[in-house]
Amino acid sequence: MRLVVPITVRWADLDAYGHVNNAAMLELLEEARVAVFWHGRHLPSDDPGGRTSRADTATFVAHQEIEYLAPLGYPAEPIPVSLWISKLGGASAEVCYEVPTLDGGLAARARTTIVMMDVASGRPRRITESERALWSRFIDEPVVFRRG
Amino acid sequence: MRLVVPITVRWADLDAYGHVNNAAMLELLEEARVAVFWHGRHLPSDDPGGRTSRADTATFVAHQEIEYLAPLGYPAEPIPVSLWISKLGGASAEVCYEVPTLDGGLAARARTTIVMMDVASGRPRRITESERALWSRFIDEPVVFRRG
Amino acid sequence: MRLVVPITVRWADLDAYGHVNNAAMLELLEEARVAVFWHGRHLPSDDPGGRTSRADTATFVAHQEIEYLAPLGYPAEPIPVSLWISKLGGASAEVCYEVPTLDGGLAARARTTIVMMDVASGRPRRITESERALWSRFIDEPVVFRRG
Amino acid sequence: MRLVVPITVRWADLDAYGHVNNAAMLELLEEARVAVFWHGRHLPSDDPGGRTSRADTATFVAHQEIEYLAPLGYPAEPIPVSLWISKLGGASAEVCYEVPTLDGGLAARARTTIVMMDVASGRPRRITESERALWSRFIDEPVVFRRG
Repeated sequence: MRLVVPITVRWADLDAYGHVNNAAMLELLEEARVAVFWHGRHLPSDDPGGRTSRADTATFVAHQEIEYLAPLGYPAEPIPVSLWISKLGGASAEVCYEVPTLDGGLAARARTTIVMMDVASGRPRRITESERALWSRFIDEPVVFRRG
Repeated sequence: MRLVVPITVRWADLDAYGHVNNAAMLELLEEARVAVFWHGRHLPSDDPGGRTSRADTATFVAHQEIEYLAPLGYPAEPIPVSLWISKLGGASAEVCYEVPTLDGGLAARARTTIVMMDVASGRPRRITESERALWSRFIDEPVVFRRG
Repeated sequence: MRLVVPITVRWADLDAYGHVNNAAMLELLEEARVAVFWHGRHLPSDDPGGRTSRADTATFVAHQEIEYLAPLGYPAEPIPVSLWISKLGGASAEVCYEVPTLDGGLAARARTTIVMMDVASGRPRRITESERALWSRFIDEPVVFRRG
Repeated sequence: MRLVVPITVRWADLDAYGHVNNAAMLELLEEARVAVFWHGRHLPSDDPGGRTSRADTATFVAHQEIEYLAPLGYPAEPIPVSLWISKLGGASAEVCYEVPTLDGGLAARARTTIVMMDVASGRPRRITESERALWSRFIDEPVVFRRG
């Protein structure tokens, strides 16, 4: 199942081409990811549990791949970013995204590999059972990149 | 041959982990890329020619892949980012990068596919001969990602 | 009358102190300003009119003053930024803001002077009657700075 | 005496108007400030001492005022930002700046009040004698704002 997360594009995200800058696009993905897995926002249920505690966990981004298919202009409203999990490992997870254009096309597809780090030890730590229970509900096929 | 481009990390690039944010890292890559190919800075010769005219060309980022190997802390000096070309197409090029850690390790390796767009038509345009002559000097093996 | 605009703080807005960076704070103010006056969001009525057309108008920021009273940490939810107009000129307006801390204190107070520019001529243009009608509803006392 | 600090404008600092965004301008000021007072770069002498230790000191920005006089376009080279001290208090300092346009005009003038905070206690701490000795060399008249 895929989640749809409303993400606000900032005026400052645009570059001189009048489109969302390629680096700013990763900020939009990060905002979608943390809204769901840190804050538990935009989930089907009101209190899903499984929220990742930022007090004892640091989320390390290990790998990202993103394909920009069409420029993303400046929207008047938050845009619906699709987000799902393509892989759950012991301490890591793969998050996939699709970012729409203003006319409902596809601006970008992306995949992020995150690793859960224990703040105290600075070492990877296993995904907890409650995290796994939450994330498992959003597993879907990995995004397929046209090039790269 | 690989170029080495000194890139300034900004205080605002760090996030609350005290490391360069994953999206800010792409800004560092962009700065290395434009310094060389738009501005002709950090090149062996004083006037290599082959600079891309931003008056008639927009550089569209089509694809990026990046692997974060170690956190990048806050440096007191600009950091030496390595940059080279792994593929030259008709209208596109693949740029590879290595970003060092403060102790000389490897913080990130990345690859960007850019497409040259004609501003007037908004369509891809062929890499010019002078651009090709410049870029060909910096062709090297593509970066290899450990995961992804 | 003051407007209250929910603004999302991004993880990337924090710097290594774990607080919203001083420059990022101005992005939050900009987001509150454009949400209301460009997009007509967060207004009492559903269609207030008086929205500024970004097709023919560029908003030039002429002056800003901001006082940072307490660090703003990372919120789990959008924060309620207060916004009002302290002065309406012929082609310019003063916008005031208050940004709360996570515990309901005051993180920052600020004032921005914007000038309406005609895109075609690149020169200032008068505030339209419909803009003035909208903005006049939100006039309140100018923010008072403790220092500066 | 005023310092001149070369600051690199990033492509991502521009917004859709093709000019440096109003919030990004404060990042440029921050970069000039930290280059000098944290890193001791761009100083007349090679080792002035008086560098502020970021290990035990956090610099809290208490107040900023900035006047944008002309749009700052995208430069091919770092721009020479002027920086000086207009006031030295017990635990605080006022830093003034002038940011040039590409044709040598004035894009912005600004003033920042910073307070030195002791990391351990989280409370203001006195400016050290060596900091004061360094900063005193760069005292000049405060910037004067046309409006505000």
